[in-house]
Amino acid sequence: MNFEFIENGTVTTPKGFTAAGVIGGVKSSNTTKRDIMMIASEKICNAAAVFTKNLVQSSAVTLSKKHLENGTAQAIIANSGNANTCNADGMEKAEKMCCLAAENLGIDESDVIVASTGVIGQAIPIEPFEKAVPEIAKIMSKDGGSDAAEAIMTTDTVKKESAVKFELNGKTVTIGAIAKGSGMIHINMGTMLSFACTDAAISSDMLKSALKEAVEVSYNMVSVDGDTSTNDTLAILANGLAGNEEITSRNEDYRIFTDALTALCKSMAKKLAADGEGATKLIICSVNGAKTTTEAKGTAKAVICSSLVKAAMFGSDANWGRVLCAIGYSGCDVDITKVDVAFSSSAGCIEVCKNGVGVDFSEDDAKKILLENEITIKIELNDGNGSAEAYGCDLTYDYVKINGDYRT
Amino acid sequence: MNFEFIENGTVTTPKGFTAAGVIGGVKSSNTTKRDIMMIASEKICNAAAVFTKNLVQSSAVTLSKKHLENGTAQAIIANSGNANTCNADGMEKAEKMCCLAAENLGIDESDVIVASTGVIGQAIPIEPFEKAVPEIAKIMSKDGGSDAAEAIMTTDTVKKESAVKFELNGKTVTIGAIAKGSGMIHINMGTMLSFACTDAAISSDMLKSALKEAVEVSYNMVSVDGDTSTNDTLAILANGLAGNEEITSRNEDYRIFTDALTALCKSMAKKLAADGEGATKLIICSVNGAKTTTEAKGTAKAVICSSLVKAAMFGSDANWGRVLCAIGYSGCDVDITKVDVAFSSSAGCIEVCKNGVGVDFSEDDAKKILLENEITIKIELNDGNGSAEAYGCDLTYDYVKINGDYRT
Repeated sequence: MNFEFIENGTVTTPKGFTAAGVIGGVKSSNTTKRDIMMIASEKICNAAAVFTKNLVQSSAVTLSKKHLENGTAQAIIANSGNANTCNADGMEKAEKMCCLAAENLGIDESDVIVASTGVIGQAIPIEPFEKAVPEIAKIMSKDGGSDAAEAIMTTDTVKKESAVKFELNGKTVTIGAIAKGSGMIHINMGTMLSFACTDAAISSDMLKSALKEAVEVSYNMVSVDGDTSTNDTLAILANGLAGNEEITSRNEDYRIFTDALTALCKSMAKKLAADGEGATKLIICSVNGAKTTTEAKGTAKAVICSSLVKAAMFGSDANWGRVLCAIGYSGCDVDITKVDVAFSSSAGCIEVCKNGVGVDFSEDDAKKILLENEITIKIELNDGNGSAEAYGCDLTYDYVKINGDYRT
Repeated sequence: MNFEFIENGTVTTPKGFTAAGVIGGVKSSNTTKRDIMMIASEKICNAAAVFTKNLVQSSAVTLSKKHLENGTAQAIIANSGNANTCNADGMEKAEKMCCLAAENLGIDESDVIVASTGVIGQAIPIEPFEKAVPEIAKIMSKDGGSDAAEAIMTTDTVKKESAVKFELNGKTVTIGAIAKGSGMIHINMGTMLSFACTDAAISSDMLKSALKEAVEVSYNMVSVDGDTSTNDTLAILANGLAGNEEITSRNEDYRIFTDALTALCKSMAKKLAADGEGATKLIICSVNGAKTTTEAKGTAKAVICSSLVKAAMFGSDANWGRVLCAIGYSGCDVDITKVDVAFSSSAGCIEVCKNGVGVDFSEDDAKKILLENEITIKIELNDGNGSAEAYGCDLTYDYVKINGDYRT
């Protein structure tokens, strides 16, 4: 491994980035929670992003896409409490947010990325931004990454932040990230926001390519294709201050950068899954021996998304029949008579199904394994070399509670 | 309408059918619940069925398919408590069940349809059948339909049975049905069993065609294609005792028969949805103005299957943003700027979204409407003539409770 995680790392750990998050009053005028944040680089960055594929899109998403057309950006403004989606005046408000950020940071409006998360279909108030943005611009600092992470939380119970460092041509390069996302029975039905910053020197094209590779095996594996929220946004800024030789092709440096970015995104994806709404457990579905990577991914996703599997995991119930059932309806090309299934955790590993048929196992041992808070469902398809991992959580009473009356 | 529902109608309401359901001990040796049932016709029937598309299939499904190859059958044996799926000796046990039924009814083994529902991957005990089947054969009667309906229940809270009658060439024709199914966050992840009997004279081919038409707009609209359980079975027997001229082509009689069968299946589908595991409400999603029927169906299914929509319905929360979000990721060709959404129930109807944007509405009035136990989400796409209805239920604490530890 060519990289290492940095203790207490966050989005502002890389050189030249500052951030702050404040109580702005978007959630409600008397909220006590941070809900507006900005991140900025001291110099213009190469930038890339991936957005939701949902036909219904926040005005923030539409505007950020436009601002990223030239492949550069210098700051991010984001809020929780309101998604700015399905509103007649949504674009006007998103533009105003960028305009306020640009004015107070002394940069160009088109170099601001904007993101929102929260309730859909209620007009977003602009007054909180008019008041908060000048204040944020004043207090932004190297230490502000955590407050920024806090300001994008909705039903999240913990802040998600992390950073990795590695060497490129003798220079230390750092990538930091924050994320939020918690509506996770299908994760992508709840908005996922993630912002990453790096001091690497890398061209916009290579940054885009690296981000796409990383997302494919991280955030996209806590989700089902085409099943995305209206606001999902993952953006990365690269300001080049590490002083490495700029990455402009898929060379060895590109590989090191992308591997580190992938590891960072995977660690964030697991944090998202573990903090799924109401979740008590992180569930990892690990598939090996698939005909192809695509079949492996499809199988892993079907299992991780099955409400019956998720509920069984909540109950620490080794109900492997539901795992097989999910494999069976996944649409993947699988020979059911070759499928082996095992449950594993820090308490041990137990095989429950061999060649598609149940094997005798100790229910007590299985229970012990499934009572842990990180469970791996291991599936061996014995049919090729494709493998994949998907991340999810259990389905609990609290998921229902949180989503039964989210707006009030 | 050329048909009417029969008060207290059930699967044995048509001429020439008898049934019984008993406490056999499949669920456990000391269960107090009926778990084995048989239905039989006094003469051989034309028969048709649709089965799960899951790659993992109960041995009962595999064997029933074989027995139906010639288009005839005379009896059905079914049990709850064990799915007879993913067991090494599954086929042997399914054959034994048919053999016992045939012996005791004095018919051919290949004229028996077999179905099982319950836990996957545990060997099904044959002793309960050896003891119960002779007893069932003795007590089968015209009045036994309800006991049969009871014997296939798993987590269902109510029996599902119904019958319709109509005239064909001056003869009264009756179709009766029973059903079970309740694992319904995606309904098709929980086994759906339904058995219908009719005294209509109709060829196997036409029966198959009518069944397919009826299923398409009823049971298949509480489900997502490809996302089916391992045991789903819907079978119909037609013994011809009504004395109508046999339906052998898609003539007017075929239309009348199919419309009545469709209405019967729709009423059963709604009963299944309303009794979804933990459900407190029947949710109907009615889509109009779609480009095509396919787009209408896809849209309706995406909305009815959204966990976030389902949880909002549980909380009587008019969170129409989640409806739009589901439309957006449905994969259907929809112009979001034309979409109107309204919520309706016996307490009234309220428009919440017009042209893809929220409209002002009274939260109090919306709450009143959503507190009812049958809610229709009305979606007008304003983009064509396609329409469809899908049936589902809300997502509740009890769903999690029921599925958190189903096996113990």
